[in-house]
Amino acid sequence: MTVVSAENLVKQMTLEEKAGLCSGASFWETKAVERLDIPSVILTDGPHGLRKQQNEGDNLGLLDSVPATCFPSAAGLAATWNRDLLRDVGAAIGREAAKENVAVVLGPGTNMKRSPLCGRNFEYFSEDPYLSSEMSIAHITGVQEQGVGTSLKHFAVNNQEHRRMTTDAVVDERTLREIYLASFEETVKQAQPWTVMSAYNKVNGTYASESSRLLTDILKKEWGFKGIVVSDWGAVNERVQALQAGLELEMPSSQGEGDKKIISAVQSGALSETVLDEACVRLLDLIFRSQQTEAQDVDFDSHHQLARQAAAESMVLLKNENDVLPLDPSGPAAVIGRLAAYPRYQGGGSSHINPVKLDDPLEELRKYNPDIAYAPGYELESDRMNDTLLEEACAAAEKAGKAVVFAGLPDRFESEGYDRSHLRLPDNQVKLLERLKELQVPVIVVLSNGAPVEMPWLSGVDAVVEGYLGGQAFGGAAADVLYGRANPSGRLAETFPERLEHNPSYGFFPGEGDQVEYREGIFIGYRYYNTKKIKPLFPFGYGLSYTTFSYDSMNVEQVDGDVYVDVTVTNTGDRTGAEVVQIYLSHPESSVVRPEKELKGFEKITLEAGETGTVRIALPEKAFAYYEPEKPGWHVEGGSVLIHAARSVSDIEQTEKVKLSKDVFTKAPAVHRNATIGDLMKDPALKEVLGEELQRLMAGSVFQPSEDEPSDMIEAMMAYMPLRALVSFQPSFTEDRLEELLDKLNGVSRR
Amino acid sequence: MTVVSAENLVKQMTLEEKAGLCSGASFWETKAVERLDIPSVILTDGPHGLRKQQNEGDNLGLLDSVPATCFPSAAGLAATWNRDLLRDVGAAIGREAAKENVAVVLGPGTNMKRSPLCGRNFEYFSEDPYLSSEMSIAHITGVQEQGVGTSLKHFAVNNQEHRRMTTDAVVDERTLREIYLASFEETVKQAQPWTVMSAYNKVNGTYASESSRLLTDILKKEWGFKGIVVSDWGAVNERVQALQAGLELEMPSSQGEGDKKIISAVQSGALSETVLDEACVRLLDLIFRSQQTEAQDVDFDSHHQLARQAAAESMVLLKNENDVLPLDPSGPAAVIGRLAAYPRYQGGGSSHINPVKLDDPLEELRKYNPDIAYAPGYELESDRMNDTLLEEACAAAEKAGKAVVFAGLPDRFESEGYDRSHLRLPDNQVKLLERLKELQVPVIVVLSNGAPVEMPWLSGVDAVVEGYLGGQAFGGAAADVLYGRANPSGRLAETFPERLEHNPSYGFFPGEGDQVEYREGIFIGYRYYNTKKIKPLFPFGYGLSYTTFSYDSMNVEQVDGDVYVDVTVTNTGDRTGAEVVQIYLSHPESSVVRPEKELKGFEKITLEAGETGTVRIALPEKAFAYYEPEKPGWHVEGGSVLIHAARSVSDIEQTEKVKLSKDVFTKAPAVHRNATIGDLMKDPALKEVLGEELQRLMAGSVFQPSEDEPSDMIEAMMAYMPLRALVSFQPSFTEDRLEELLDKLNGVSRR
Repeated sequence: MTVVSAENLVKQMTLEEKAGLCSGASFWETKAVERLDIPSVILTDGPHGLRKQQNEGDNLGLLDSVPATCFPSAAGLAATWNRDLLRDVGAAIGREAAKENVAVVLGPGTNMKRSPLCGRNFEYFSEDPYLSSEMSIAHITGVQEQGVGTSLKHFAVNNQEHRRMTTDAVVDERTLREIYLASFEETVKQAQPWTVMSAYNKVNGTYASESSRLLTDILKKEWGFKGIVVSDWGAVNERVQALQAGLELEMPSSQGEGDKKIISAVQSGALSETVLDEACVRLLDLIFRSQQTEAQDVDFDSHHQLARQAAAESMVLLKNENDVLPLDPSGPAAVIGRLAAYPRYQGGGSSHINPVKLDDPLEELRKYNPDIAYAPGYELESDRMNDTLLEEACAAAEKAGKAVVFAGLPDRFESEGYDRSHLRLPDNQVKLLERLKELQVPVIVVLSNGAPVEMPWLSGVDAVVEGYLGGQAFGGAAADVLYGRANPSGRLAETFPERLEHNPSYGFFPGEGDQVEYREGIFIGYRYYNTKKIKPLFPFGYGLSYTTFSYDSMNVEQVDGDVYVDVTVTNTGDRTGAEVVQIYLSHPESSVVRPEKELKGFEKITLEAGETGTVRIALPEKAFAYYEPEKPGWHVEGGSVLIHAARSVSDIEQTEKVKLSKDVFTKAPAVHRNATIGDLMKDPALKEVLGEELQRLMAGSVFQPSEDEPSDMIEAMMAYMPLRALVSFQPSFTEDRLEELLDKLNGVSRR
Repeated sequence: MTVVSAENLVKQMTLEEKAGLCSGASFWETKAVERLDIPSVILTDGPHGLRKQQNEGDNLGLLDSVPATCFPSAAGLAATWNRDLLRDVGAAIGREAAKENVAVVLGPGTNMKRSPLCGRNFEYFSEDPYLSSEMSIAHITGVQEQGVGTSLKHFAVNNQEHRRMTTDAVVDERTLREIYLASFEETVKQAQPWTVMSAYNKVNGTYASESSRLLTDILKKEWGFKGIVVSDWGAVNERVQALQAGLELEMPSSQGEGDKKIISAVQSGALSETVLDEACVRLLDLIFRSQQTEAQDVDFDSHHQLARQAAAESMVLLKNENDVLPLDPSGPAAVIGRLAAYPRYQGGGSSHINPVKLDDPLEELRKYNPDIAYAPGYELESDRMNDTLLEEACAAAEKAGKAVVFAGLPDRFESEGYDRSHLRLPDNQVKLLERLKELQVPVIVVLSNGAPVEMPWLSGVDAVVEGYLGGQAFGGAAADVLYGRANPSGRLAETFPERLEHNPSYGFFPGEGDQVEYREGIFIGYRYYNTKKIKPLFPFGYGLSYTTFSYDSMNVEQVDGDVYVDVTVTNTGDRTGAEVVQIYLSHPESSVVRPEKELKGFEKITLEAGETGTVRIALPEKAFAYYEPEKPGWHVEGGSVLIHAARSVSDIEQTEKVKLSKDVFTKAPAVHRNATIGDLMKDPALKEVLGEELQRLMAGSVFQPSEDEPSDMIEAMMAYMPLRALVSFQPSFTEDRLEELLDKLNGVSRR
């Protein structure tokens, strides 16, 4: 089926059939048109595994779904910084979807983590748009190479659950472009997801689902998106406005209400039928593209292995005093914490999966060391203190001489649908950690959580492994990492703040009433902590290893506007491990405010003990640009840029300076009465005219340094003075002379 | 001369005479109308002393002025937290002005210290609007009781020198009201300055000088300002718009250009002559009021004594390890630092005064101890290192065994006209402090600066006295404090940040191009540091003493809407001293975001050794309010409020909880399709109708907790769900039924 035939087919459709194609037949299916052999196709939730509902009558999709491999959720996958792995995971999900005849697996979610409180952060990748888009691109490529579509979501500026269906995200244009749209932009351009999902919220006053600026001008025209826009489930406010804005598919079924509105709008002339036709062409393209996919056999065992590898690689070793990890399989240890028996391996909400199998962490640990003791330590269903459990845990820890504590956030703390109100672990878990500290035995903490927690107890423990929500193989992966079969190589894809209050959005999250102002602007995540010099608990990009790496050299090569960076790294430890070489840029000479550092490249390299390797990282011209709203577009400024090769945003190993020859974008507005003398004198052509005039005016005037008044002040006052103020300060300068001068200045030819 | 005769007089004036009255005759004088016996009156700069130009031909006012007493500048005066003292200083300035036949002394400046970089911060009081208005009120009262007018400036939102004549300060309404207008509001209402000076900058897109909202609606109508608005010198952009907006007097002379524009606008009908007449009535009121003032004899010696007392009381003892201060007059000490010989006692720009006399700090110290050695230590004109001076200083310090270092910011660092770019002391002074640290002798630092500096050298010194810009008697006052004749009682009226980057405006100060966004909103100064839990170097309200105070008890009394707080304090040390009891409020139950603490009252009390005293502090109802832009006005919410009695914002001594019975302001907007179910269910009247409908809808629906889905999520999703989304999620709920429901809900009568 080609584009031409989709267009022909649309010509044969009735108005009712076309309107019908623009919303679901049910909760998960599009409408078939049997008369024309147009099939119904299935969309299902994702993104870290397939969630195909068994029961079609289950509208909200909260009941059981077909068993599928549950991979770590996006927060963990991003911590792998491993594009190939993400692609492999995507491919596995694609195979499972193809087997189930699913056309589109909804996801990935590439929204920015503005606040660690956002209940859905576990489904998102990062606080950095570059890392987020790299992960999205890999995931989408993997799925779509199997002939299954994806839905990049939630477009756009959907960064909280609080009042998500009504809140208006107010963001300035530069921030929108550089941060909140950026991860979508690169993903759309490089991976072409079959669909993009419009968000629930408003953006700068307009529902995302009704924003022709977002859906048509930017997404389709500017970025060249070729697929369809589907609404988040229930995100359509007014169907006709949404269609006009570029939203082809309303989901779920609107019970015929949307169809009626479209039909009546076409009939009344309020909606051009061409808009509807174009939407149907895009929809048919998708439907027929999905028909070419063949069902595949799925090897669930190998998918489980992949899930285990992904889970291990997503773990971030945050602390490891005196190399207390990895554990010695022959040494005694007590495993403490109900989460070791009832692991929290995925988040709540639409991404919730029915796993094919589920590792029991305790059992997996006992495969390494059968003598491990266990004590639940705390209740999971509530924060209630339970002294019996506490004492039992302490006894077990003391007896074993070493405690491995599984801690983390219960389901009720984190979910789609609502945000957290604080960053603390449950009180009863904190209490447990405080009690264990008193025992003077080594304490190792394994965390299960979808987003950062505060760690006031950090100094009292010896090691911390951030396990995120590790999917169905979390148990096996945790055992692999704790016992050193897997060497941790995860790096934080988000800042862990020392405390919630330090987050840049604090005070302006989640907003008041139905408005949330993104006042921190471009200073999201590490862009804020680094620029503001506020020390986080753990910085963006941070993560330890069981081995060590040296950064031997860095070489920078400029080829036209692009830059290539070669970084040579050696594994100086005694076991194989992987290092993530991170490239950050600083713009000390920029004419606009810029974050102190920004991630613009990275490469993960695995090295055996003693091995040396070189990664090459390309920085395309756009990596150096900022978004200029005054003359809309990405602008590269000439001047020096610092290129840092780093272990984390706070741990720079090598820095090189490059000089960009590209000129600063020049604005040449008309000269008006309030143009400052300083600004005008910067332009050589204007300086000639204005300088002459000023010299005449200044002869013998008081605009000369006196004994009392430092010349700095006079200069500054002159520089900031608008032309019209000369009338006040220079008796000989009249309004007429001002007009003459303006004419003269505006007659000067400038670039 | 009464108001009636001013109106009659205006009727006798020609259009030209009236237009002429609305701008200066010269740089400092208004126009006389001899035909009608309307005299010319003089306005001169202030505010920490009189600055009457000797030479009328000096337009910018940079040449020498009549000798006058130079008091500490506002930054220091505010640190006294002493209303009576401010009033005495005001009265002294008023007497000197009356002697010189000056009608109006320009000032005080009550702008907020948004960033410590602002070059004019030394002329402003505080980062807190309450403290700032209390200081302004006292100053104005003192001056005006002498029959001399003041000019409250710079109205409004003039918080930087960078591009001050063209920049647009973009501030949200709540922040404008609670912070940037608040210090003006209370001052105008309580002190009625004769004039208010409009600022150079724009506020939310309109020049302050052309803003009828600021000058007429708010200042005159809402606050009841009875005086005239005068432009900052050269701040008028378009004369006719300014007059229409409520700016009566353009200064300086516009060389007749403004007059011409007014005349032609009246003649063309563009400007109603009534506007001009009303302006002239106000101007004549001022002119004739100033004629009733009689010249006074001035006792400059007693004014110098007052300046010395003010300077001593403005000093803030920031550090005093091992009670190294006060000094023993019989012990040897080396005074180091060129600022001891060439004190920096006032700031640069329009407030620069020609002092009657000037204390030499070194000489004053030698009055206590004639054997004091001196070494200049560093160059003052540049940051250049001078090894000879360094070595000489170290030798002197080592020989004496104790170093008193006079350090601070040279003129070139701080001035009207430009902002600082960093908060460091000059490099050569820092170097000196680092060298002295190595010597292991006690080091005492006396600072002269108009605004905070970073102190990376703090741990290496034993004592720090913040002397601000102490006026002509700084030298004597410094000696009094160092030798303990005066016991330091200054408290910081602004936060000293650990580093510039921590300031809330960092990244958004001084803006880009001609726009500066106040993105931190209400979180200025300590409101930010406390809310964000960022530890400053020294918090707002902080200051040590040579004695100690205990807070014995606190008693809170509610009388209708007002609250009275009695705090009992005892001087537990061995010498007389003064304590500043500070009252902060916290609103843990507020429905809107509020700063963690806000200053709403203070009282300074002097106690002899062992003496106990009680201060009574009144908190009027408005102290509990926030500004609600949705229904414009100040709103007091019911619920609990914490009242803290504190030594500083970070050092709370006593806390009491009061319950306010006042109701939350209730909004009852029409119910629309995007109203959330959660919001509607909060209203008991609506809940009855909606609850019934929901129960019908939910019967057997999936909006029920399942095993997988915690009920929290379902509840949150329902609460945030707009009514229209029921159409998507509930097959039986149609658009028609939604319309019916909306009608029904909007028919319910609510408060």
